Order: sequence, then structure tokens, then C-alpha cells
Amino acid sequence: MAAPAPHDPPTSTDPPAATSVDERPVHVTHVRVPFADVDMMRHVNNVAYVRYFETARMRFLVGLLPDHPMLDADARGFSLILAETRIVYRSPAFYDEELVVRCTIGEIRRSAFEMPFTITAGDRLVAEGAGWLVGFDYAQQAAVPLPDDVRAALRG
Amino acid sequence: MAAPAPHDPPTSTDPPAATSVDERPVHVTHVRVPFADVDMMRHVNNVAYVRYFETARMRFLVGLLPDHPMLDADARGFSLILAETRIVYRSPAFYDEELVVRCTIGEIRRSAFEMPFTITAGDRLVAEGAGWLVGFDYAQQAAVPLPDDVRAALRG
Amino acid sequence: MAAPAPHDPPTSTDPPAATSVDERPVHVTHVRVPFADVDMMRHVNNVAYVRYFETARMRFLVGLLPDHPMLDADARGFSLILAETRIVYRSPAFYDEELVVRCTIGEIRRSAFEMPFTITAGDRLVAEGAGWLVGFDYAQQAAVPLPDDVRAALRG
Amino acid sequence: MAAPAPHDPPTSTDPPAATSVDERPVHVTHVRVPFADVDMMRHVNNVAYVRYFETARMRFLVGLLPDHPMLDADARGFSLILAETRIVYRSPAFYDEELVVRCTIGEIRRSAFEMPFTITAGDRLVAEGAGWLVGFDYAQQAAVPLPDDVRAALRG
Repeated sequence: MAAPAPHDPPTSTDPPAATSVDERPVHVTHVRVPFADVDMMRHVNNVAYVRYFETARMRFLVGLLPDHPMLDADARGFSLILAETRIVYRSPAFYDEELVVRCTIGEIRRSAFEMPFTITAGDRLVAEGAGWLVGFDYAQQAAVPLPDDVRAALRG
Repeated sequence: MAAPAPHDPPTSTDPPAATSVDERPVHVTHVRVPFADVDMMRHVNNVAYVRYFETARMRFLVGLLPDHPMLDADARGFSLILAETRIVYRSPAFYDEELVVRCTIGEIRRSAFEMPFTITAGDRLVAEGAGWLVGFDYAQQAAVPLPDDVRAALRG
Repeated sequence: MAAPAPHDPPTSTDPPAATSVDERPVHVTHVRVPFADVDMMRHVNNVAYVRYFETARMRFLVGLLPDHPMLDADARGFSLILAETRIVYRSPAFYDEELVVRCTIGEIRRSAFEMPFTITAGDRLVAEGAGWLVGFDYAQQAAVPLPDDVRAALRG
Repeated sequence: MAAPAPHDPPTSTDPPAATSVDERPVHVTHVRVPFADVDMMRHVNNVAYVRYFETARMRFLVGLLPDHPMLDADARGFSLILAETRIVYRSPAFYDEELVVRCTIGEIRRSAFEMPFTITAGDRLVAEGAGWLVGFDYAQQAAVPLPDDVRAALRG
């Protein structure tokens, strides 16, 4: 398949932090494709992959940051919001296949970090991409820097 | 909200075609947020926006290319597959809001084209992004150039 | 298609209230079938109909009972929970069809009421069924009788 | 919670077949609740349970009837369609809970059979209900009797 998928250059002024990626945490989630996720083209629907990434991402974050309430709309203090998702579809997947969603931590900035992911079926790369998560304070309704304990957890 | 969201530069060798964007076709779909699309943070779920874009995109393509079967897994000849989606979340949306999904045609290459989209609630930008669609022949299982009638339809 | 599974009237000891059904409120929601709701059999997926009923039901209830917070997990006072859904599939529906979900109020009991629904495509009956909603107090975590204003609203 | 809506046995004229239920086949599927299945009431959404039942039912049927194509819209010969689903909600379930969906075979008639199911979280009954599946020939677009090999597989 072609790999078209160019982008405009990034326009953020948020400078990349110096980070080592050697020991970054990794999260693996398994998905066995349910009937409802297969569309009329008999492939796993494009949107289903984005949901698989969400499922994996939330489990990863809740496990990585147990002291920060990721799932409580009324909580005070530091939380995270998803600012962007990019997904590239590499090959179709099919009903009842066993997929593996593997998430890790990419670039870490002052108030945001990247979560790259892959979705594979055995040796086959099905999809890959990344989300960007931004530190957010729901009480202030504003982006906030990543606290030190969060940065430490992300670096592994 | 922060705008983190940088990317690596594009790596395709597929050169951009010279195109005018003045008269490009546009498609508008309305969505009234259903209960099931709101998550435990009481915001429209991130994945729901990707589904709204899919709903709009399929309607747009079927209307734009009536001579090419977009929805038949067994059809012969030219079809399109989604190669990539990028979505940037700009502000939350809520239960029962009226959202507008607006798709248009962006860059057109030899065998692929970009479909930018926005999702708005009144004057508020909720999300924006783009998909890349690639000409595909299911019988050959290979990417194929966009036929002239498709290029003409995309240019409006 | 066979009609294999009719039911007798419910056998609850909760006595039916005396009600006239002449002027019962009705709610109509329109759904244009999105791509993602069609499954690999090329029919609207069975689960999608249940979601259409939910979408319609929540709009109906919020409009009918504006003084009772139906959508706030932290609210005090009277709320409603769904206790049961039954759906009978009468004929398939297809991609991009315009469906009409029509809900009304059926039997009203001391602490519960029935919401029958139909889903049609033009003159064709696609699915029909009913939900049962039960008065519930989240603070007490207990079923409660329907207040008088709710009974009045349900009777129309 | 109240139990408002029990049902009597079905009143079809299709006579129940004489069957022993001792050795009926059973299928068990595990679901770990994903983030997207939890709604703004912070409970697993009502529709999600119906999807869990579908996921389990399709796996059960494909395993039980390997000689009959359950998943091919173009296949000739015997297939099954879902004619009805009933679900009773017994207690809420929550984000990240481990649910067990247990399906079995209930009443078997000439051209249809019942598939009862339960959804549990540990010892807690979360939901229960049943689907009715009808023998169907897509080429004839008509209900057909269950073949002998299907009846044998259903009886275990």
C-alpha cells in the first residue's frame, strides 16, 4: 500500500525536553476482534482501531499514574487530556483476529507528552500512530506543566 | 488549550499535484450528540469524533463518485481506502449538542488525496484534522492512480 | 421471517395503574444509518438498533421530565434507570437508510413504566420492542415510586 | 432494584421439541470493560451489554456450527439470524471490571432456538437475558427448519 500521509510541519513553540528513551514504560493490551467491529468491507472498521488505542491508553495511564485521578470529572488537581491522535493504517485485520496494542512513551515536553502505539496481528503491522496528552487542570480549565512525579513515571 | 501536536516531516516521494483549491467540493453532515457518545468525563468521547468524520467521509465519497462502488467488498475496479487519519481536539463537546462536520478536498497526488475536516458546535471549533485516501484495486490488492474522472470530481 | 418469541403480559405483582393511552406523549427521532453501523452481513448491526432506541429514549425522557435530572450521576432526588429492554427484529435495514425511531409510553405501574418503540424505514417495520424504566434514587440506591408530576407527564 | 418486567413462556404455535438440557453446550467470553463503554452516569452503558452478548454469541455459533457459514453474506445454504433479544439489567458494572458472558442453548423449536445468557462480575449478576435465533436461507430470503446436524450440535 502507498504511504501518502504527509503533514504540515509542527507549529508548537513548546521546546522538546531532553529525554532518554531507553527505559520507557510499555503497555500491552490484547484485543480479539468482535463481530460488531467488522464493517461491510469485511475489514476491522477504521474507527475500531482508534477505540482499541483508547482502551490501551487509559489502562496504561491509570497504571502509570495511580496517584492522579484520570477518570474523575470532578477531581481536583492534575489530570491529562488527549490533544491529538494520528493513526496510519498499514494492513487490514479481520473478524476474530487476535490483535496486540502496544503503547509506549515518546517525546516529553513541559506540559505534554507523546504516546506512540502499534497494533499488530502476529508479525503483521496493522496500524500505528501516536496520541499527544496534555497536562490539564479541570478546576482551572487550563493546561498545566507535567509535575515531577509524572515526568518520572513517564521516563520509567 | 496547548497545541502540542508536532509531527515528523512527510516522507512520501509522491509529488503534490498542481491544484487550485478555489472550487473544491464540500460536504456538511449534522450530528446531534447521542447519550452513548458521552464518556465518564461527561465530554463527547474522543473516538466518537473519529466516527463522525467517517460517517461524513463515506457520505461525501459516495455522493462525489457515484460511478465507483465505495461500499462493495466484491466490486471490481477502482476503490478507495483510508490510509491515515489525524485529529486534533480543540474544545470539548457535550450531550445533545448539535455538531457540524465539514469535509473538503485538500492536496491531490497521483494515487491519493487528503480530506481535511472540521467539527464545530456553533462558532466553537471542537476538532479538526484530515484523512488521506488512496486509490485501491481490491482485485489486485494494490494501490492504483486516481482515474481522470475521480480527479475531476475531487477538483470540483 | 418467523416470529418465534412472543411474550405474555408481565406477571409482576405490581398492579397496573388505571391509565388512558389516548393522549400519551410520543417522541420521534430520525437516524440516517452511518457506515460504522453496518456489519459484515451488510445489514444494520443488531446492536445499533438498541443504541438508536437509547438515543431516542434519553431525548424523550429529558424533554418529558425537565425538572428531574436524568443525566447527572451526582444529582439528589428522583431519577430513572433502565431495567429491561426487549427488541424484536422484523426486517433488515441498510447503509444510509433513513430510519424513524418512535417511542411512546405504555403501561404505568407504581414505580416503573414501559416505553414501547418501533423503528421503521418508510412503511417497513424494521424492529420493535420496549424498555422498562424504574424510578430510582441514587442517594438511597433504591427503587422509589414514580412521583405525581412524573405520572402526570407520562400520561400526557 | 425492582424487577418490573418478567415474562411468561412464549406463546408461539411452534411446538417445543423434546430436549434434555443436561448436556447443552456452554460458551464463556471474558470482557474487561473499556473506557468507551462507560457512560456519563459512570456505569457500563446499557447498550454495551448487548454488544458483549453479540460478541459472545457469534463466537459460540461459529465454534458450534463450523460447517455452516455464519459470517458470509453471500454464502448459500443454512444460516441463522437473530430474531429477538431480551436483556434484564440486574446491577451496574464499572470501568475496568472483568465481566464474564456465559451463553447456553435454551428451548429448541422446529426452525428456531433460544440462547440464554448471563453477564456476571465475580459473584454479582450484572445482566441476563436471551436471544432467539432463527434458521434462515439468504438465497431464499426465508426461514427454514434447523437441519439435523444443527439440532445435534445445539443439544450437545
